[in-house]
Amino acid sequence: MVKKQFKLESTGSLMDRAFLTLQESFTVEQAVQHVRNNVENKTNIHYLYVTDADGMLKGVMSLRELLSASGELPLSAVMKTNVKSLPTDLDQEKAAKIFQKCDFVSMPVVNEFRQIVGVVHVEDILDVMEQEATEDFHKMAPVSSLEVSLKDAKVTTLYRKRIVWLVVLVFMNVFSGAGIAHFEDIIEANIALVFFLPLLVDSGGNAGSQASTLVIRAMAVGQVRMTDWLKMFTKEISVSILLGVTMAAAVAGVGMFRGGPEIALVVALTMVAVVIVGSLIGMSLPFIFRKLNLDPATASAPLITSIADIVGVLIYFSIASTLLSL
Amino acid sequence: MVKKQFKLESTGSLMDRAFLTLQESFTVEQAVQHVRNNVENKTNIHYLYVTDADGMLKGVMSLRELLSASGELPLSAVMKTNVKSLPTDLDQEKAAKIFQKCDFVSMPVVNEFRQIVGVVHVEDILDVMEQEATEDFHKMAPVSSLEVSLKDAKVTTLYRKRIVWLVVLVFMNVFSGAGIAHFEDIIEANIALVFFLPLLVDSGGNAGSQASTLVIRAMAVGQVRMTDWLKMFTKEISVSILLGVTMAAAVAGVGMFRGGPEIALVVALTMVAVVIVGSLIGMSLPFIFRKLNLDPATASAPLITSIADIVGVLIYFSIASTLLSL
Repeated sequence: MVKKQFKLESTGSLMDRAFLTLQESFTVEQAVQHVRNNVENKTNIHYLYVTDADGMLKGVMSLRELLSASGELPLSAVMKTNVKSLPTDLDQEKAAKIFQKCDFVSMPVVNEFRQIVGVVHVEDILDVMEQEATEDFHKMAPVSSLEVSLKDAKVTTLYRKRIVWLVVLVFMNVFSGAGIAHFEDIIEANIALVFFLPLLVDSGGNAGSQASTLVIRAMAVGQVRMTDWLKMFTKEISVSILLGVTMAAAVAGVGMFRGGPEIALVVALTMVAVVIVGSLIGMSLPFIFRKLNLDPATASAPLITSIADIVGVLIYFSIASTLLSL
Repeated sequence: MVKKQFKLESTGSLMDRAFLTLQESFTVEQAVQHVRNNVENKTNIHYLYVTDADGMLKGVMSLRELLSASGELPLSAVMKTNVKSLPTDLDQEKAAKIFQKCDFVSMPVVNEFRQIVGVVHVEDILDVMEQEATEDFHKMAPVSSLEVSLKDAKVTTLYRKRIVWLVVLVFMNVFSGAGIAHFEDIIEANIALVFFLPLLVDSGGNAGSQASTLVIRAMAVGQVRMTDWLKMFTKEISVSILLGVTMAAAVAGVGMFRGGPEIALVVALTMVAVVIVGSLIGMSLPFIFRKLNLDPATASAPLITSIADIVGVLIYFSIASTLLSL
C-alpha cells in the first residue's frame, strides 16, 4: 500500500499507524483473547477501538474497561459509542489543545469515511507543545522560524532568520528620527530634553511589551479571545494610569535635578502619556494581528518598542513645545 | 491517615494517589484477576507496579504485557525490574523533561524507602508544560509571576506585577540620560546626531533581544548548556558582524540625506558597533544569569534594550566626538 502523504505539522503526519482494532461482534472474552494474541509488537496500546465490518469507528474502551467487564457480554454493550476522533488534516497545535482539554493518552485519527487510519499518542503531543512554544518564543525575538537547533544552526542561517526583522525595525525607527527632526528648534533651545529621550520612549515601549506579551500568551493558551478586547482595553486603561503616575513620580526628581521645574513637568506629563499610550498599543496589537489573520505573537517586544518610540517622540516634543514656549 | 504536605510545583503535589499495585508473588493469572476485581474506580491505569511485602517498588509492566504473558508464570518472571521512578520533591518542570525523554504515560513516585506513594500522569504533565512556558513568557515581558488568568486578574494585581520591572528599567535608563548629558557639547554642535539616536540604540537592543531570546529558549528545552558558551559566543561574533554591516548599509543613505557624509560615516560605524556589542550582550546575559543561579529568562527584551541603550549612547557619541572634531 502506498503511504498517503499528509501535511507537515498535521495529525496525519504525527499519528502512529500501528494500532489495534476489535470487531463490534466480538464478546468481551473473544476480545481479551484477540488482544492477548495481537499485542506482541504493538507498544502504546491504551485504548481499544471497536469497528464495524467496514472498518468504520464505532466505539472505544480502555484495556482496563475490557478487563473489568463480564466475559460473555458483546463489545457493543461495553464500549463507549461517543468516540472523540481527530481528522487527518488537523493542525498539530489544535490537536495538542484537544488533548489538554480531554485528558486522553491517545486519540484515533479517522479518514473521510470515518475509518480509523492511525492513533496520535500523548507522548508526541508533549513534543508538539514544546515545538509550538519555541515557535512563539522565536516570533517574539523576533526571528523567522528556525527549524534547526540553535547550537547547530549555521552562521548564514542565523543571519537570514534575523536580518529581515532587524531591517524592518530600522526603517520604522527612521520615522522616530523624522519626528525628532521636526522638533529641531525646541531641542536646540532646550538641549536638556535630549537627556530624557531614551528614558521616556523606552518606558512606553517597556509598558507596551509587558501588555503585548501578557495578551499573546493568554491568547495562545486560550484564556483570552477576540471578544474580550473591550474588557481588556478598559482594564488596561486603569492599570496603565497607575503605572504611568508611579513612573512619573520616579522620574520627576531626576527631571528637577537635571533640567529644573519646567523640564520636570514636561518629563512627568510625558511619562504618564507614553506609558498609557504604549500599554494600549501593546495590548491591542495582538488583537489587531489576529483580526488580520496574522499570528498575534508577531506583536513582539522590539516591534512594540519601535512603534512606542515614534509615538513617544511625538508626545514628548509636542508637550515640550506647548509648555516651554509659554 | 494524615496526608503529607508536599512542596508546591513538586511531583508530590502533582501525583495521583489512586494507583494499583500487585504483589510480586502473584502469578500472571492471579494478577489479571486482581486487576479485574480492583480497577473499577481507578481511571488512568496504564502500568501495573509490582511491590514486595513491604510495599517497596520491585518491578513494572503494562496492562498489555500482563495480558500477553502466560497465566502460570510468576509476575517476577514477567515484570521489568528496571523501574524508573520519581522522588516526591522533584520540581515539576524536571519531571516534564523526564516524561518527554522517556515517553511514558505514567511514572511512579516513591518515598525515601522506595515505597510507591503515587503516580504522575502525562495528562498533568501537559498542564505543567503549558504553565512553565507561560512563566517563561511572563519573565520575558518582563512581569512578575502572575498566578491568575490575565482576563480575571485585578487591576491592582496587574499593577503590582508590572510596576517593579518598569521602575527598575526607568532607573537603568537614567544612566543613558547621564551618558547623553556627558556629550552635551558635541550634540549642541551637531543637532542632526539626535535624529539617529533612537534608531541606533534600538538596533543594538533589537539584535540583543533576538540573541537573548534564542539562547533563553534553547536553554529551556535543553539544546544549549553552560559549556556551549564559547562556541555560541564565537558564532555570535560572525552573525552580528554580518547583521551590523547590512544594517549600516541600510541607514548610511538616510544619514547622507539628513546629515551629510560625515554624519553618514558616524551613523554607519556606530550601527556596526552597537549591533555587535548588543548581540554579544544579549547572547551572554542568559549564561551569566544561569551562572548566578538566576533564571536565564530574566534577560528579557526590555532589560537587554535598556543595557544596549546605555552602551549605544556611549558608543555613538564617542565615535561622533572622535570623527566630528577632527
